[in-house]
Amino acid sequence: MMINDIAPLESAGRGELTVFCDGRYRDKFLASEASAIITNRDLTRNAPHRDGLLFVEQPRLAYALIGHLFYPTSPLVPEVSASALIDPSAVVGEGCRIDAGAIVSNGVKIGARCHVGCHAVLGPGVVIGDDCIIGANTTISHALIGDRVRVESCVTIGSQGFGFVAAPSGLLRMLQLGRVVIEDKVEIGANCAIDRGATGDTVIGAGTVIDNLVQIAHNVRLGRNCILCGQVGIAGSTEIGDGVMIGGQSAISDHLTIGAGARIAGKSGVMRDVAAGDSVGGYPAVPLRQWHKQNSALARLTRRGADGA
Amino acid sequence: MMINDIAPLESAGRGELTVFCDGRYRDKFLASEASAIITNRDLTRNAPHRDGLLFVEQPRLAYALIGHLFYPTSPLVPEVSASALIDPSAVVGEGCRIDAGAIVSNGVKIGARCHVGCHAVLGPGVVIGDDCIIGANTTISHALIGDRVRVESCVTIGSQGFGFVAAPSGLLRMLQLGRVVIEDKVEIGANCAIDRGATGDTVIGAGTVIDNLVQIAHNVRLGRNCILCGQVGIAGSTEIGDGVMIGGQSAISDHLTIGAGARIAGKSGVMRDVAAGDSVGGYPAVPLRQWHKQNSALARLTRRGADGA
Amino acid sequence: MMINDIAPLESAGRGELTVFCDGRYRDKFLASEASAIITNRDLTRNAPHRDGLLFVEQPRLAYALIGHLFYPTSPLVPEVSASALIDPSAVVGEGCRIDAGAIVSNGVKIGARCHVGCHAVLGPGVVIGDDCIIGANTTISHALIGDRVRVESCVTIGSQGFGFVAAPSGLLRMLQLGRVVIEDKVEIGANCAIDRGATGDTVIGAGTVIDNLVQIAHNVRLGRNCILCGQVGIAGSTEIGDGVMIGGQSAISDHLTIGAGARIAGKSGVMRDVAAGDSVGGYPAVPLRQWHKQNSALARLTRRGADGA
Repeated sequence: MMINDIAPLESAGRGELTVFCDGRYRDKFLASEASAIITNRDLTRNAPHRDGLLFVEQPRLAYALIGHLFYPTSPLVPEVSASALIDPSAVVGEGCRIDAGAIVSNGVKIGARCHVGCHAVLGPGVVIGDDCIIGANTTISHALIGDRVRVESCVTIGSQGFGFVAAPSGLLRMLQLGRVVIEDKVEIGANCAIDRGATGDTVIGAGTVIDNLVQIAHNVRLGRNCILCGQVGIAGSTEIGDGVMIGGQSAISDHLTIGAGARIAGKSGVMRDVAAGDSVGGYPAVPLRQWHKQNSALARLTRRGADGA
Repeated sequence: MMINDIAPLESAGRGELTVFCDGRYRDKFLASEASAIITNRDLTRNAPHRDGLLFVEQPRLAYALIGHLFYPTSPLVPEVSASALIDPSAVVGEGCRIDAGAIVSNGVKIGARCHVGCHAVLGPGVVIGDDCIIGANTTISHALIGDRVRVESCVTIGSQGFGFVAAPSGLLRMLQLGRVVIEDKVEIGANCAIDRGATGDTVIGAGTVIDNLVQIAHNVRLGRNCILCGQVGIAGSTEIGDGVMIGGQSAISDHLTIGAGARIAGKSGVMRDVAAGDSVGGYPAVPLRQWHKQNSALARLTRRGADGA
Repeated sequence: MMINDIAPLESAGRGELTVFCDGRYRDKFLASEASAIITNRDLTRNAPHRDGLLFVEQPRLAYALIGHLFYPTSPLVPEVSASALIDPSAVVGEGCRIDAGAIVSNGVKIGARCHVGCHAVLGPGVVIGDDCIIGANTTISHALIGDRVRVESCVTIGSQGFGFVAAPSGLLRMLQLGRVVIEDKVEIGANCAIDRGATGDTVIGAGTVIDNLVQIAHNVRLGRNCILCGQVGIAGSTEIGDGVMIGGQSAISDHLTIGAGARIAGKSGVMRDVAAGDSVGGYPAVPLRQWHKQNSALARLTRRGADGA
């Protein structure tokens, strides 16, 4: 049979390929009329026999890879819009696309095959590697950006850090002199804000992915291959190891150290260091098992309270 | 007496009309020198007699309606700015105003009497209905938008969803192929981010209103006439019924179902399905009465703790 | 010895000046090879004698002041970009810099020595004082702004407030007629959203500083010299006194009064008034000591629970 397209489990039909990789969707799997379903033997144990099952060790990864074969990224069509403003001192690599209204300031260096979106603003001296995508209406200053970095729309990179000291005349701003260093293959979601370092740099490690509306304060150092979900906030100078996963709307206080591989549940408020590999949750965040126990204890307490005890 | 204007309860004076619709502001009502006050009989029971009271069943609604009579929306003055960039293949309806620097890409269709703000960017193929307002510096792509939709400034609609899978080479992006479908009369606040669907669409139901800095992830389906307050975050593929109210800074986990008419207290962290009509609060969110009991129980516990127990 | 530069405690070396103002970094102080270290006698008590210590009462303030001597703000080079669009009815003060793509609408007044960034949009009638900085891609309308105000990039000021009333036809918007009044020396971080008042104004008091991604709803009144950390949200009509400190990701409900000098811990959910000078934390927020007790009590409870009690 010819497979013409990919589709989600709930809607895939004849001629389409889909994936079954999460036991919660077993009902949808059993009802599916897809011609081919990528899955594994564990998930389909005890299910009635059917044709078109493709067993692999990592179904979700296989589905992602096949998806990119069905829908390869369109090659970038190089073009510099007549309404883009590129300073004569800026260097733009070959094969770039610079959209309407983009501003490329003095001293900027852009590598090969980059796509700079409409009205994006690259401030003086910003350096961008090869094969990057910069979203529309995004503002970047004081930044050194690697290769294959993707930044969505309405993002601010390189804003002044939030450091003040009380002075007789009111709040006095601490100097903010550093940069934002973004390593290769980083992805940054829409409407994020990433501050430049005060002295020293703010650093986002290679391969780290950041969802929308995330706040990264000055001098934060994020490791490699971290995952930061939507609306996370990381306060100043906190260091986060490689492969850390941070659930949506979590906050991490300033000057903390989060070890490699740590996992932080969504909406946590982390006020202490987290050791490598540990999982925490809650506000204030505690080890994940303890958080679950606290929630159970609180539920029991309430039932007692309801009995008049 | 002639009524010349409307004004808030605390400042309305002679010749002005105001509203008294919340018993918490009884003191302000008693001191008011407004010439006319919209209210109801319940709220003013036992209050000293005074002139100028207008009794209606729904004072706040009446005040809103009268306000729009005093301050009717100015009719849109059609004009396409010379500095807007409109692709020859785009279709712009009659009576539109397209402000300076707006970008209307190839294949875009805009209905009648729309107002597209300065530097707004409409990506290829975006479709917008009649009587819409698109704010300045807003970026829209991969979107199908109904009639009478209002989008504020610095909003991103149609960004890539946050889906990744671990691969030997690092995190591999899942395909993001879907759209954002925004039905009629939706309002979207400033600096929001709404991701396109992965496969399938992200959908915002008719009449739903969304405050500032809200995150809507890929494949979320919001019902009709929902109210999402500031800084709310909805994770991927969660379905939300009609008329759901979500308080500020609440987070809802991915792949959940929130029934019609549910109410979610501000700052809740919702980690399970919520049945239609239920009210929940807390982190993790529990039924609202239970949350209040938990808070009381915790307070009692603390008092005992303080006694050395 | 000649001091050539300032540097952070961990990296300052010969010829450099740094600061030691927090006992948590004593190890770094002891290892430092900086030629000069600003500190005080308390912090260095019992430390081995070394040269180059400069004792002052407020080391962090002294370091900030010295930093500004090493790195004075570059004087603004006045220039109006040829691609900025300035309405003939707008007034731009002397010595201003208006960057490429900035839009200055009809009736706008800008004071002396202001810097308006690329693609910033100033709506009709906006008034800005002297020595202000407006970031790139920022949108301002319905606003009256004082002197020496700094607004970062991708900020929205003057958006419609979030006020709706249920009507037979769906949700009806309440009139939003007011302004945003921003007093002198206010700083507003990247990607913030500040709504205009409904009737009456939204007010940000002089000297107040606001971090990134903060939401200020309609008719909020912030006092002078307040500090609002990242991702804070303040709901409609809440009044906040002078010198209030609000930690990151905190939310404050609508129509509350927060007294002068109050301190609100990070990630708090404030649902009641807070008296002047009080410190609160938690969700729902309680006095700070009580919050700490609650957390301890919960931990004890969990231990008992683990023992089977």
